[in-house]
Amino acid sequence: MRALYFDGQLTLRDVPDPRPGPGEALIRVRLAGICGTDRQILKGYSGFHGIPGHEFVGEVVQCDDRRWIGRRVVGEINVTCGHCEWCRRGLGRHCSSRTVMGIIGRPGAFAEFVTLPVANLHEVPNEVPDEEAVFVEPLAAAAEILEQMPIAGGTRVAVLGAGRLGLLVAQVLRHAGADVTVIGRSEWKLKLAQSWGLKTVRPGPGDESKLAPRSFAVVVEATSSPEGLEQALQLVEPRGVVVMKSTFHEPAHFDTANLVVNEITLLGSRCGNFATAIDLLRRDAVQVEAMISRVFPLAQGVEAFRHLDCESCLKVLLRND
Amino acid sequence: MRALYFDGQLTLRDVPDPRPGPGEALIRVRLAGICGTDRQILKGYSGFHGIPGHEFVGEVVQCDDRRWIGRRVVGEINVTCGHCEWCRRGLGRHCSSRTVMGIIGRPGAFAEFVTLPVANLHEVPNEVPDEEAVFVEPLAAAAEILEQMPIAGGTRVAVLGAGRLGLLVAQVLRHAGADVTVIGRSEWKLKLAQSWGLKTVRPGPGDESKLAPRSFAVVVEATSSPEGLEQALQLVEPRGVVVMKSTFHEPAHFDTANLVVNEITLLGSRCGNFATAIDLLRRDAVQVEAMISRVFPLAQGVEAFRHLDCESCLKVLLRND
Repeated sequence: MRALYFDGQLTLRDVPDPRPGPGEALIRVRLAGICGTDRQILKGYSGFHGIPGHEFVGEVVQCDDRRWIGRRVVGEINVTCGHCEWCRRGLGRHCSSRTVMGIIGRPGAFAEFVTLPVANLHEVPNEVPDEEAVFVEPLAAAAEILEQMPIAGGTRVAVLGAGRLGLLVAQVLRHAGADVTVIGRSEWKLKLAQSWGLKTVRPGPGDESKLAPRSFAVVVEATSSPEGLEQALQLVEPRGVVVMKSTFHEPAHFDTANLVVNEITLLGSRCGNFATAIDLLRRDAVQVEAMISRVFPLAQGVEAFRHLDCESCLKVLLRND
Repeated sequence: MRALYFDGQLTLRDVPDPRPGPGEALIRVRLAGICGTDRQILKGYSGFHGIPGHEFVGEVVQCDDRRWIGRRVVGEINVTCGHCEWCRRGLGRHCSSRTVMGIIGRPGAFAEFVTLPVANLHEVPNEVPDEEAVFVEPLAAAAEILEQMPIAGGTRVAVLGAGRLGLLVAQVLRHAGADVTVIGRSEWKLKLAQSWGLKTVRPGPGDESKLAPRSFAVVVEATSSPEGLEQALQLVEPRGVVVMKSTFHEPAHFDTANLVVNEITLLGSRCGNFATAIDLLRRDAVQVEAMISRVFPLAQGVEAFRHLDCESCLKVLLRND
């Protein structure tokens, strides 16, 4: 099959078709999304070599349990041992012997086919088209914040970064009743946020009053850059929470005295519940299709990664025609 | 009066006696403690110039409310506006116009006399001698952790750093039912912890098994050095909490991907409730006198700071004879 392959350099290759193991399904990928983590992998994050890609929607074409065949599915990306303490607690994404599709020790979805355990699959309801379903993984990650901390209605929340993840987080928290302000640099991404009824600020002359230090109870760091943390720590009020969503290859540094003196909580937040995300899409609670900048055929995957560097780009998808 | 004064260099000086303002008391300092923050101030932390010192026990000698005169007191260090949102929420220590005794904009306790608002004072009960009362401020800071997060009985907690603050935190959390391990470098400080029934580990050959990565639900960083954070992040389990207690002048840097992927919470924690600390001392729930390494007269305060550099030193006090 054809696949994108990273071994220090990203190329399109012919690789052997994957074979599903016991309890696994073979899935023909229909549509896959490129995410910030994929770009970090190309910079060396997680030391991954192989087929990247962990956001996808596809169709089961082979499976021991024949009821799955033909179903349209999305898949949870952590493949776990199933019997350690974390797996027993329902938090398999922290299983220490896990593999992670396209990130740690397991081929990803930028390919014609991918395999995953049936236990990882979620059927996509008919009301949710491929172009929405491909957002289930990042949307679940956005919704994870609400599983980690309660956010009372009206809470002042800043989302730093109007990129793919930031715009999902902003919509999810607004849907939960928070008073959300999206802070970003790109005028048209902020306009998109405004079109969904979100408040926005583009830092610059005249906007200082809207971004007073210590003025948000919760700040979500979704900039994908180490500098975002320092800005988040300035915006959050004493006893507030900075949620860290983006992973990056470089270490961040910050003024720990600020964290201690102002008793700030820094909350690391990662993958989330797929069922929650599917439900948000089915109920049209969040808008995702407007975030699609361009769809490339899989064969042009290397170009698709380059396209992500455009200022005007949000989500780029790969279609497996 | 005589006082220690820091203006880039620490010296003993004669300075004018302080005059209590309306609602304030003039307190003759009996005993004061030198803390890690005082040493950081000498390195430039908080940009403070003036009389340092914020751990003390003294006697009220002048006050509009004459009932206070003659009482033995300890004093909360944050002097607040009393009417902002934070003050109204009972969290005056986050009042943005606060001064902090010996740290921000207000003379401290390394002097013959100090002034504080009566609202900041707590009378010391007779059962608590000066040598214990002088620990109320750092003990309150240690107990603050329990006001910020619940710690269930039996929770595996590591305290990184067997210094003054670490040994207080370890005792407070053990008293609350946690399964506490103190991790330090100094053999005799760890022996002291053992004498109180605490588990200890001195990192070195043979002790790796007791310090497995991801093996503590809570890690308290009390090393007073930026390197402690990185070690804490290695020891804490996924979804665990790293409590940051020490403030230092230098920025820390750390692997944010670890925080995000393992969904770790970093909790900044500072001053605490004095009444809680006084109660712990009155009930002999924590041992503090054994932590006193040496008591210097105030006149030898500069030497006292130098003495803190000894490997074998824990708490150094200044007595105002």
